[in-house]
Amino acid sequence: MATYFSATGLTDNDKDPLPAPLRFLDHLLRGVGQVMLQNNSYAGLLFLVGIFYHSPLFGSAVLIGTGVSTATAMLLGVDRRLVRAGMFGFNGGLVAVALLTFLQPNALTWALLVFTAACSTIVMAAMLRLLAVWKLPVLTAPFVFISWCVFLATARFGRLESTHLLPTAGLPKAVTVEGVVTASTIGEGLFNGIAQVFFQGNLVTGLIFAIGLLIASRVACAAALAGSLIGLLVAWGMGAAEPAIRSGAFGYNGVLVAVALGSSFFALDRRSLAYALLAAIATPLVFAGVSAALEPLGIPALTFPFVLVTWLFLLAAALFPSLRPATDSGV
Amino acid sequence: MATYFSATGLTDNDKDPLPAPLRFLDHLLRGVGQVMLQNNSYAGLLFLVGIFYHSPLFGSAVLIGTGVSTATAMLLGVDRRLVRAGMFGFNGGLVAVALLTFLQPNALTWALLVFTAACSTIVMAAMLRLLAVWKLPVLTAPFVFISWCVFLATARFGRLESTHLLPTAGLPKAVTVEGVVTASTIGEGLFNGIAQVFFQGNLVTGLIFAIGLLIASRVACAAALAGSLIGLLVAWGMGAAEPAIRSGAFGYNGVLVAVALGSSFFALDRRSLAYALLAAIATPLVFAGVSAALEPLGIPALTFPFVLVTWLFLLAAALFPSLRPATDSGV
Amino acid sequence: MATYFSATGLTDNDKDPLPAPLRFLDHLLRGVGQVMLQNNSYAGLLFLVGIFYHSPLFGSAVLIGTGVSTATAMLLGVDRRLVRAGMFGFNGGLVAVALLTFLQPNALTWALLVFTAACSTIVMAAMLRLLAVWKLPVLTAPFVFISWCVFLATARFGRLESTHLLPTAGLPKAVTVEGVVTASTIGEGLFNGIAQVFFQGNLVTGLIFAIGLLIASRVACAAALAGSLIGLLVAWGMGAAEPAIRSGAFGYNGVLVAVALGSSFFALDRRSLAYALLAAIATPLVFAGVSAALEPLGIPALTFPFVLVTWLFLLAAALFPSLRPATDSGV
Repeated sequence: MATYFSATGLTDNDKDPLPAPLRFLDHLLRGVGQVMLQNNSYAGLLFLVGIFYHSPLFGSAVLIGTGVSTATAMLLGVDRRLVRAGMFGFNGGLVAVALLTFLQPNALTWALLVFTAACSTIVMAAMLRLLAVWKLPVLTAPFVFISWCVFLATARFGRLESTHLLPTAGLPKAVTVEGVVTASTIGEGLFNGIAQVFFQGNLVTGLIFAIGLLIASRVACAAALAGSLIGLLVAWGMGAAEPAIRSGAFGYNGVLVAVALGSSFFALDRRSLAYALLAAIATPLVFAGVSAALEPLGIPALTFPFVLVTWLFLLAAALFPSLRPATDSGV
Repeated sequence: MATYFSATGLTDNDKDPLPAPLRFLDHLLRGVGQVMLQNNSYAGLLFLVGIFYHSPLFGSAVLIGTGVSTATAMLLGVDRRLVRAGMFGFNGGLVAVALLTFLQPNALTWALLVFTAACSTIVMAAMLRLLAVWKLPVLTAPFVFISWCVFLATARFGRLESTHLLPTAGLPKAVTVEGVVTASTIGEGLFNGIAQVFFQGNLVTGLIFAIGLLIASRVACAAALAGSLIGLLVAWGMGAAEPAIRSGAFGYNGVLVAVALGSSFFALDRRSLAYALLAAIATPLVFAGVSAALEPLGIPALTFPFVLVTWLFLLAAALFPSLRPATDSGV
Repeated sequence: MATYFSATGLTDNDKDPLPAPLRFLDHLLRGVGQVMLQNNSYAGLLFLVGIFYHSPLFGSAVLIGTGVSTATAMLLGVDRRLVRAGMFGFNGGLVAVALLTFLQPNALTWALLVFTAACSTIVMAAMLRLLAVWKLPVLTAPFVFISWCVFLATARFGRLESTHLLPTAGLPKAVTVEGVVTASTIGEGLFNGIAQVFFQGNLVTGLIFAIGLLIASRVACAAALAGSLIGLLVAWGMGAAEPAIRSGAFGYNGVLVAVALGSSFFALDRRSLAYALLAAIATPLVFAGVSAALEPLGIPALTFPFVLVTWLFLLAAALFPSLRPATDSGV
């Protein structure tokens, strides 16, 4: 049995296959890990622990969403290497936790959760094909688009009931600086930023996520912390509201951008670090822009700023000969 | 003369060409037929009959719009096979009927109708080139984008006068279930859903459209009915307003998605049926999302949900080896 | 020294390189010229003169923005031929003048100006790669997207202070004809339309810009005047508000569309003239649509209508065999 374990999870190949349930469990954990771009079952397990610590309801949702989207991919005959790497799990898992965060946990929401997790596999496949032209990764775009669609649909479907967390639609207008940023804002914001990647506003959960990243990659862990910190510092400097900074709202996209550009896609050197730093500084600005642009629709920015910034910096890199791609991006 | 007739319309080829007016008439009818993805003059003729039955004004608009966009394509020297299949007619016809539905039928509107029908040929050509990268069909996207632009422009141009049908701009907000769905809601909604493909809220028109489809393809006709029915059942289950369900608002995009995925683009088997079913269920949800997203702009969703869902499911199919493309998609 | 001068600016090649400061100055002037699609240092110089005539503040901003984005491109090792043609300058210059027009000129705005000008080089590189698939030019899209993001971010960041020029967010609604168009409206609107390409509402500046274009290309100068005139005439005919027509709001996108399609991208003949004319007529309609669509966000249309119309007509041209591309597009 011990020979099953490899550095990133269970060992699985076509010659010496795992028993089906273990195989599926490994796909599932890697799927959870891929939310932070880690093709690593141990990281996925820690992320699950962090979510269950904060809320067993959300933890179950992530498990079910990841399971449904992965199973749908297997049913539709997707290339097994992609399924094995968790590529068809993370968007389903995120859709599931997003639906439970922003909609009342009634029977219709759970049914919709299963349906949209299955749909996330279609959207993932569609975007893999779309973006293959530029060799771009899909990232969490399917999760974002599907969640937005469901949240918007609450304005047409009387039986879809939102929670108080869904923003009220309004017109964006200039704001003044609100609240005073203290050391506790920075400290809480730093770990909340990591926890918010899964919508968990919980310090300890953020800490457990960081440990999960550390197991998978020291560089990824350092990047996540740096991304969260840069996000909140920039937001502070620009005069963002203190409660928003504390909640990690300006951090979670930076976490993902920093992990993607700082540890997954480029070979680590001084130039790529400077490049990732530029991206991390731009991210809170893009978050503010996306978030304000969605204000008339009453929907949250989710991880779209991360997707946008990462696509831009990956596309642009093709014209900058000094940036070298990572030998294995893991995605 | 009788030898002119083939299974899908007039026989036309470069060796033995038809007289020019007959040729153009056949292009025109196929253009109308292509609104429901049928390269079939008889279907196009029936669609026209259905529209004229409801409103001679709208019927004339469709004829003129289809004629102008087709003639523009011929003038610009587009590949004759595309023109012959009606590919440069249907967006012009739809733009024309959309403008007359949502704008007052004054001289400026008719002038704009001719101009935008001509522009629909430019947008069609642009999108053919754009989407060729993924071998995706353009569908009704040019009609949607041009109509949106004109409707939005009413907020800047004092001489563009809208009808009461153009929605008032507002902010999307959660709704409660409104009205009671009865058998008559379902019955009317079913055929209104088909009629709404051309903006015709008329049962008989819907019936005539269904007969037109039946002439072209039994599978397409069955798909259209199923698409309309699934759309309204899903909307009912989610708690949509009864008047909207009855009007066919939740059905017309499903009609087009079902015809496209259920009869045009895939070889008919159990797997492709299940795939089309998934798409048809997703369509009313996407309609609700798009419609709410456009609420702050005061413009209708038109057939954009159809375009979006069909593109997604066609793109994704490339990764699902069990789905076989139709040998001839007709588009 | 005299041998340094060529028909379009300073002569520069790898065999006989210019001194670095002169080289950079030439890149910079070509960058300013590229705002109106002229790879021409003399045109760029005249444009700068026109801006400085209206406002030394804006003139300095354009210089700094163009310099920062060009220097960033050199630092990142972009292909020198692109840098030399000013391709990495014009978006930085436009972002800079846009920020100073719509934000208070405080220290944060200047810092943001330098940062976003550097980012414009990333976005430019990303879009060059994105659009290479269709051989489409990037035009001013990076400037538009970056400026929109910053303007939207004012709704999240208390220290970002907008000027009264940034539109207030509202819901688009039908308007009535406002004001009477006179000869002075047409005369002022004509040159303001050219000046507005750089956000300069100033007749004399518009005249200086026109002379700059004349130096680079007589056809481009004629196209610019025609584009501005068509824009305001169409807007007048459709019932646009007189103050907007006078300000050049309906003209500046037409100027750019006419220069691009009428002088840069197609060989000049009767057919390409008719094609450019169609595009120029469509442009004020697209401007009205884009401008209304952005009303709920409280951000201006900038040159997005130009980008959209030019992309559409360039994409479409691939299907129209009678249109011949210019032998050298200069972009």
